Amino acid sequence: MQVNSLLRYSRACPFLGRSSATSLNALAQVGGSNGRASALTLKAGECPMLGPQLRRGYASVAGNREVEEIHKKKDIAFDAVGTTADKCPHATAARAAAAATQRAADKAQVAPTPERAAGTFNYEQFYQAELEKKHKDKSYRYFNNINRMAAKFPVAHTADPKVQVDVWCANDYLGMGKNPVVLDTMKRTLNKYGAGAGGTRNIAGNGALHLALEDELASLHRKQAALVFSSCYVANDACLATIGAKLPGCIIFSDSLNHASMIQGVRHSNAKKVIWKHNDMADLEAKLQQVPKDTPKIIAFESVYSMCGSVAPIEAICDLAEKYGAITFLDEVHAVGMYGPSGAGVAEHLDFAAHYATRESSSPVPRSVQDRIDIITGTLGKAYGVVGGYIAGSSDFVDVVRSYAPGFIFTTSLPPAVVAGAQVSIAYQKETMSDRRLQQLNTRTVKGRFADLGIPVVPNPSHIVPVLVGDAALAKQASDMLLSKHHIYVQSINYPTVPVGEERLRITPTPGHTAEQVEHLIASVDSVFNELHLKRQSDWVAAGGRAGVGAPNAVPIKPIWSDAELGLQDGTAPVQLAEGRQSTVTDSAVEVANKRLTHLLDVGPRLGSTEASA
Amino acid sequence: MQVNSLLRYSRACPFLGRSSATSLNALAQVGGSNGRASALTLKAGECPMLGPQLRRGYASVAGNREVEEIHKKKDIAFDAVGTTADKCPHATAARAAAAATQRAADKAQVAPTPERAAGTFNYEQFYQAELEKKHKDKSYRYFNNINRMAAKFPVAHTADPKVQVDVWCANDYLGMGKNPVVLDTMKRTLNKYGAGAGGTRNIAGNGALHLALEDELASLHRKQAALVFSSCYVANDACLATIGAKLPGCIIFSDSLNHASMIQGVRHSNAKKVIWKHNDMADLEAKLQQVPKDTPKIIAFESVYSMCGSVAPIEAICDLAEKYGAITFLDEVHAVGMYGPSGAGVAEHLDFAAHYATRESSSPVPRSVQDRIDIITGTLGKAYGVVGGYIAGSSDFVDVVRSYAPGFIFTTSLPPAVVAGAQVSIAYQKETMSDRRLQQLNTRTVKGRFADLGIPVVPNPSHIVPVLVGDAALAKQASDMLLSKHHIYVQSINYPTVPVGEERLRITPTPGHTAEQVEHLIASVDSVFNELHLKRQSDWVAAGGRAGVGAPNAVPIKPIWSDAELGLQDGTAPVQLAEGRQSTVTDSAVEVANKRLTHLLDVGPRLGSTEASA
Repeated sequence: MQVNSLLRYSRACPFLGRSSATSLNALAQVGGSNGRASALTLKAGECPMLGPQLRRGYASVAGNREVEEIHKKKDIAFDAVGTTADKCPHATAARAAAAATQRAADKAQVAPTPERAAGTFNYEQFYQAELEKKHKDKSYRYFNNINRMAAKFPVAHTADPKVQVDVWCANDYLGMGKNPVVLDTMKRTLNKYGAGAGGTRNIAGNGALHLALEDELASLHRKQAALVFSSCYVANDACLATIGAKLPGCIIFSDSLNHASMIQGVRHSNAKKVIWKHNDMADLEAKLQQVPKDTPKIIAFESVYSMCGSVAPIEAICDLAEKYGAITFLDEVHAVGMYGPSGAGVAEHLDFAAHYATRESSSPVPRSVQDRIDIITGTLGKAYGVVGGYIAGSSDFVDVVRSYAPGFIFTTSLPPAVVAGAQVSIAYQKETMSDRRLQQLNTRTVKGRFADLGIPVVPNPSHIVPVLVGDAALAKQASDMLLSKHHIYVQSINYPTVPVGEERLRITPTPGHTAEQVEHLIASVDSVFNELHLKRQSDWVAAGGRAGVGAPNAVPIKPIWSDAELGLQDGTAPVQLAEGRQSTVTDSAVEVANKRLTHLLDVGPRLGSTEASA
Repeated sequence: MQVNSLLRYSRACPFLGRSSATSLNALAQVGGSNGRASALTLKAGECPMLGPQLRRGYASVAGNREVEEIHKKKDIAFDAVGTTADKCPHATAARAAAAATQRAADKAQVAPTPERAAGTFNYEQFYQAELEKKHKDKSYRYFNNINRMAAKFPVAHTADPKVQVDVWCANDYLGMGKNPVVLDTMKRTLNKYGAGAGGTRNIAGNGALHLALEDELASLHRKQAALVFSSCYVANDACLATIGAKLPGCIIFSDSLNHASMIQGVRHSNAKKVIWKHNDMADLEAKLQQVPKDTPKIIAFESVYSMCGSVAPIEAICDLAEKYGAITFLDEVHAVGMYGPSGAGVAEHLDFAAHYATRESSSPVPRSVQDRIDIITGTLGKAYGVVGGYIAGSSDFVDVVRSYAPGFIFTTSLPPAVVAGAQVSIAYQKETMSDRRLQQLNTRTVKGRFADLGIPVVPNPSHIVPVLVGDAALAKQASDMLLSKHHIYVQSINYPTVPVGEERLRITPTPGHTAEQVEHLIASVDSVFNELHLKRQSDWVAAGGRAGVGAPNAVPIKPIWSDAELGLQDGTAPVQLAEGRQSTVTDSAVEVANKRLTHLLDVGPRLGSTEASA
């Protein structure tokens, strides 16, 4: 066990400093691998003496070899349990953690015992080398321990339930994960139908709730059919892999910023892949032109790109698709629930008035952008607040995926409570625009305040607020400083998720953030920018721009939601929350959403001691 | 609209028979695609006049072209709603169904409106042709609508909540999906942490519950670490694809009966694949011998093969792996919760006494079979009753998958309630063997009674009861007859899930099946075998055997669970349930399981109107 910086810091501790290194054991053994700080390290971070040093060290991992070592399973062990720790204000929690990790500590002491023949491959050595690569290029990920509390949305507690932080980077964009209609429905469904589906869709795992959710989704997008998957990662992968492999000689035209799930789906299809420059219609057309007209083609792209907030020119893509005989595959993962009068996404939003006027119908508005898209995929795990993914399109298309995609066929279907919760969440968001309007208004506020302060935000027309840092170590340091010093959680986004040099803090406002929380965010980010000397807007302008920030001749970007659509012109815009007024629940929408599953959930016997309300 | 057999049958109906074909519309439009019978067809199946004819027709789809047409979206439309239907006892439900499907009917009337340029590929035609293939080779799947009711386990209702059936084919093997400790935990977690995780594990979706579940899983298998995925399909796919691609020049040796998820994982790794004959050690060794000693190799296999119930010779595979320098990848999906003193699976079970003696420890029993396995994968969605999948192995191995697998990294993590429910389910099953013992006893009873009646069961040592039918049409007919006539749901398993000629009814007893339900199953299967003239054991013997049934010189198979392990020798074996005594809940195990998450769930504010009990 190596004596490193942490141990040296520990010498300063009046409680723990006198313990010998060898007498300190078990506690640090556990959780100190797989990208987690150990229970002990987390604990030490809260110590009035160790904490500041450790946080600084942990925050500046990229430049601090010794602190890196801590996280690479060479944790110093403390005698934090027992006598000395009793004097520490965190002793109780530390003891609980120690007890919970005792079994794991036993386990950690016993390495695997392979007895492979001499001269055979050394697997463990190989794994270590692969991990070392990640440490070297600074792409090794440490997971923060964040526990979002339903009753305090958007607040979460950290590893210590007493330490609470404002969450500013979750994808529960509208707070539907704590909406009472979703939670009540899930609890009623647990009572009635239990925890799991109990089988694949083909064998015992297909129920009325699954069918109802798929009808809801088909109606939402005004398509003939929809199909639900474990996640939209699986939906994208399975759908593109299946269709790309089936269509004879198919070529898939993939936007250069497409999500990993689409990249995998294209790869798994074994179809030829052509990558076109992000949102560049000239490049796409030039590439489409090179392929015979009658060759099957898929143009695969997203509506809202999650890391920069850019939005695809969907209508122009439809024009090209029709001209060159391609089908369109549109991932609306970051847009469903967030755009359009029904929450169906950007494709719906582009014909806002026509869709609003016919919002009771499930028939497509002929030749609308949404109608012209062949395949829409979406998630139930972001704006809808639950989990799962889906595809929507023509009946026969959906039936082909249903019939041929192994990733759909051979897996346990989603739990009844999950599909029921997702359905009422969709129904609720169909019924009221209040949450997504307020989300956009808060986005405008945050972007505006940052602009006033010269905090650089990657320009975009959507709900994503990517604050440019432009350096991996600094981005992580800023994120860690926001967490430990300001109790604000914004994950830093580094390579390979974004290009090297474009590292950022990705901020996602919600309708649940109060005026006070917004002010605290602005002040905290400003303070961190000062403390770490991060580049401001003017610095990027001087540097010639980066990631769209401070680019010469930049044209102002019009947000997708217009003033009129936000209700700013007719006075129907929702009002920002503030302390003392924190509920965004729309009762009339709850009522409508509740009715969706009444025929299933409000009949028959209930189970157990924890009855749900009617 | 085609006048076919259904319409002719409808003429016999005193209520509907006089309605003209053209006046009958909307109702049958909906749900009559994508492998579902339409709402109308389902309704008609319950009619005292139409029902028997329709069921017969539906049951014998393989031989009845006209009834097939019904399911291929050429449904006859009935004027079942409104005036005539008012006389029908099912009118209320029919009206509800009609109302619910009105929007969908709107939608169905509007076909997609692609306006692709002339001379381009016709996608819709292509989809239709692909579906036609499935219809032709009889592999097109119709999903039954099965809603398993927690309070009546193992009973489910069908599309009509009033029609209830005994479920005999779900993978909720132990009924944990309705266990109160699981449901209460999930409801408390919903109250505290909401519906969804709100992000990926790296961004806002990693909480104390996720870490606790992974610790629980690592402890269960006595491995250093574990990692949770959306499903075990994703776990197998992502793990094999990642490791198979990373290990230089890796060759994957895959059992010929491996699950689709493993087949996909091997394919996605782009590693060289060598398929060895199911459970054939001589074949595996012959193939291993052909590869240089120092080449990285993965031997991928399952413990319990779900469609035939066979069990791998795990220890012999470990011997070969060590001899030839391979790592072992063991899928325990159908075994976790079901075997071993802790429910860790067959690998644990093989050293039952040693693991039982040390059951409080998380350290491996050195050189035990479980210890010698490098990678174990399992599910949270079968015996554990919830949803999700995982891998377990050495810390560095798990960290490599965590750091490199896109299917883990780029997806929303499982909801807090799901991971909490899964953890207490595992903890419960660690604490008591009662459920899995009773499951095995019921399996013995069912297998024994079938043997007495000459009902052919594919011989195996596990909990799966595969009743051989040996013909696709007859297997489906038997399944449909059990459902409609005997109110028993057993899905037929046809090609491509099993080879042509080995079609079967896959029966899965649970501890929750009462003596009466067992008797009803035995009598019903016997009756169906008589009515459809299905081949019995003696017929297969005479025919020289098939799928292991009636094979010449067959050696009796010893079940994995011995009499002693079942508690049959010391009088601790659980007693079969019967009407009036239906609970299998072990209070002491509930208590232990409940304590697992007390530190998180029993503190802090609760949400909403539907408080959970403490």
